[in-house]
Amino acid sequence: MPSEIFLVTGATGFIGSAAARALAAAGLKVHGVSASARPGPAGVEMHRCDLLAHDPVAALLERIAPTHLIHCAWDVSHGSYWTAPANLAWLASGARMLQLFLAGGGRRAIGLGSCAEYAWTEAIHKEGHTPTTPATPYGRCKLALCEAHEAARLMGASTAWARLFFPYGQGDGEARFLPSLVRSLREGRSFDTTPGTQRRDFIHIDDVGEALAALARSAVGGPVNIGTGTGPTLREVALEAARALGADPALLRFGAMPLRDGDPAVLMAEVTRLRDEVGFTPRIGWQEGVARFAIG
Amino acid sequence: MPSEIFLVTGATGFIGSAAARALAAAGLKVHGVSASARPGPAGVEMHRCDLLAHDPVAALLERIAPTHLIHCAWDVSHGSYWTAPANLAWLASGARMLQLFLAGGGRRAIGLGSCAEYAWTEAIHKEGHTPTTPATPYGRCKLALCEAHEAARLMGASTAWARLFFPYGQGDGEARFLPSLVRSLREGRSFDTTPGTQRRDFIHIDDVGEALAALARSAVGGPVNIGTGTGPTLREVALEAARALGADPALLRFGAMPLRDGDPAVLMAEVTRLRDEVGFTPRIGWQEGVARFAIG
Repeated sequence: MPSEIFLVTGATGFIGSAAARALAAAGLKVHGVSASARPGPAGVEMHRCDLLAHDPVAALLERIAPTHLIHCAWDVSHGSYWTAPANLAWLASGARMLQLFLAGGGRRAIGLGSCAEYAWTEAIHKEGHTPTTPATPYGRCKLALCEAHEAARLMGASTAWARLFFPYGQGDGEARFLPSLVRSLREGRSFDTTPGTQRRDFIHIDDVGEALAALARSAVGGPVNIGTGTGPTLREVALEAARALGADPALLRFGAMPLRDGDPAVLMAEVTRLRDEVGFTPRIGWQEGVARFAIG
Repeated sequence: MPSEIFLVTGATGFIGSAAARALAAAGLKVHGVSASARPGPAGVEMHRCDLLAHDPVAALLERIAPTHLIHCAWDVSHGSYWTAPANLAWLASGARMLQLFLAGGGRRAIGLGSCAEYAWTEAIHKEGHTPTTPATPYGRCKLALCEAHEAARLMGASTAWARLFFPYGQGDGEARFLPSLVRSLREGRSFDTTPGTQRRDFIHIDDVGEALAALARSAVGGPVNIGTGTGPTLREVALEAARALGADPALLRFGAMPLRDGDPAVLMAEVTRLRDEVGFTPRIGWQEGVARFAIG
């Protein structure tokens, strides 16, 4: 019987599947849970469970008896998740799951947070320094679950909170920036977008998975940014995708759409904790990652 | 059928019963819920329900269909509640109850917070200004539920969060400072305590009930301190109780116990929001309130 048993929630989702894949690739015993019937990553023992249900979650945790929990499940339906009432349900589910996990002897819990927990008034976001006054219900509920992990840490548990910046790559939602853009370019259609001057800390999904696995296997506590510390503009990212595809860059109609009100100019992660404390450095630069995704 | 239906959770507890009493005294339709079989305040229709259970909570909310929720229920077992794992369960329960309440058409939700949500590095605590980096699991979980109420507010709901300072009066836990001290003095026993130099914002439980009722009936949003803006020392409070009882003040052995490590010198509320926005001013000064409680 392995001494470490990992449980990844949301294990058929974009982030959860990457974390589960990275752990399984490291030869670890990994269980995954998902409400969907989609298959999980290779090497991951999948369980189907609605985490908003009550008794089934307790039964699942009792059956698996995980020592390590990486909780990625959340409602992230494109377009609605920023403001959906379901954010409260996922907060409730996450707090209860954390409590049940620890009560069952769980040793280390990692929660999945977001750069949306920060006030987006600064360019570089640093854990414990940048104000956390999120402007959205999603950001508020993620921050609330972060507080729950901090509470558990003050109770003596080993917990950390992964604040994810801008993941991209295979498996990303089709309605998001890079997938939509690549689809347009592949089909030779023009793509209307903003001036694209916004800088974002894009991190390849494979690096996200590896970072979460490294964080889970470390003893680092508290919020940890998951980003690269670099910030290409959306324009640079779009042009790189066009270059990789050999598509006409004139298809990219920068400025056809206005910048959204309050869309921050720069959103980048301070990555000192991830690099120096967790010991993880992303391996895939944004040019390489975007090109790889575009060619698909 | 009344257009406003209030539901107070923890309605047999110290705080909840005071809130329910104040609302009922104002002639409002008030339901109370409690896990205990203790009777609720006069004029309050009581329901027995374990709020950590799943389906019964949904059924209760559906049956009562409250328009106003004042959520006071929480595990506050003396001595253990600062660090108990149950804090996570109460956070989960509170977030879920808020979501169900709003989904059922609820109009206004008040959550019960604590001055323990603030970093106790400052003397006067102001909503939105004093850093909220609680040192305890209890403070962290209360802050997390505050974030949930802020999330609901960003979804368009009317919510507020009552940050309670130091309530005292009839119904307070027997192990707490003032009840223990009064018991000793009544029995002519000496009472060992700290030097008593700490200043605390004591607020009489009747004022707490009235303040929560006023907050629930207002449209004020976000965190609101519930205190008086005054801060007698523990020594002053103890001596006032002795005076009211006609007890020998020499029974109070100040300095027989050391100050606890990190016990802050001053914990007082900035009460501008409560006074000017909610329009509530406490009516019972601490001398009068302490004397009234001591005489019982």
